[in-house]
Amino acid sequence: MSGILSGRRVAILATDGVEEIELTQPRRAVEDAGATAEIVSVSADPIQAMNGDIEPAGTHPVDRRVSTVSAADYDALILPGGTVNADRLRMDSDVLAFVKGVFAAGKPVGVICHGPWTLVEADLVKGRTLTSFPSLRTDIRNAGGTVVDEEVVTDGGLVSSRNPDDLPAFCATIVEEFAKA
Amino acid sequence: MSGILSGRRVAILATDGVEEIELTQPRRAVEDAGATAEIVSVSADPIQAMNGDIEPAGTHPVDRRVSTVSAADYDALILPGGTVNADRLRMDSDVLAFVKGVFAAGKPVGVICHGPWTLVEADLVKGRTLTSFPSLRTDIRNAGGTVVDEEVVTDGGLVSSRNPDDLPAFCATIVEEFAKA
Repeated sequence: MSGILSGRRVAILATDGVEEIELTQPRRAVEDAGATAEIVSVSADPIQAMNGDIEPAGTHPVDRRVSTVSAADYDALILPGGTVNADRLRMDSDVLAFVKGVFAAGKPVGVICHGPWTLVEADLVKGRTLTSFPSLRTDIRNAGGTVVDEEVVTDGGLVSSRNPDDLPAFCATIVEEFAKA
Repeated sequence: MSGILSGRRVAILATDGVEEIELTQPRRAVEDAGATAEIVSVSADPIQAMNGDIEPAGTHPVDRRVSTVSAADYDALILPGGTVNADRLRMDSDVLAFVKGVFAAGKPVGVICHGPWTLVEADLVKGRTLTSFPSLRTDIRNAGGTVVDEEVVTDGGLVSSRNPDDLPAFCATIVEEFAKA
């Protein structure tokens, strides 16, 4: 599989409260496949990651501020989870504009755990089939999405998973989908 | 105002991730007015509170497990915020049954910040007017609620506020509404 994503640029959109393993494992997966991954965030400050939402984990440098990027800069997007991360991302208008741009351009997106809240906020789940952490499934359904309970779901370039236990399947599937695009 | 809530029992429903000041200040307000307040949670373990969602704050003992209580045990309910707290509460079926029971009995409820997610999950915001932290307003609207941006909103015994800055108005209003019931 080495090199399957050579030359591709992948944005990982995250902020404080991101679930650390959902940031680091997908990043490693796309980098191992040859992609260049960049952490895109709401500010230039390093991100405070968490373990299990409550326990502070490592900090991670930010490559670019979301207000300075556009969908044209990337070939694919990853939205990790972490309850507070997703809750904060959805409140940022530059985040919503960037994610809407990625969807409008038909670029592939991987979203896991609480990540779909940003898609709910941007009104991007209507008519789509996806999975998520259990807590936000009502919010996804109320926004017009169809929720299924599977370790990984692919719907027209949108890859979704439920939680960190799904990371092996999630990482394999985003690499495959990102390579198709 | 001392004694205005004498003899009243107030449940404060919370779990790990609760925003500490949204737990302690409303508790003090109802206790100062003469009520007995109890922390009701999903397990018997002490609750890990947070400051600003990310920084661990104090721990708080639990008085009763939600699976052992019913609406008849209390005269009023407080739902504090904290992103992770609200996210976890909404996934617990005993929490949803208890909150539905409190609403069905017409007892007054105070909810602040991310607290309304539990009401969204229990399908209790339809046709109600309330406020919340900005991040979940889309979820409340998608669940049929009307969201306004005011420091404190009262709608038929449902008192709501946006964030910790609103606590003085929130605390004064819950004491007033809880006394009317």
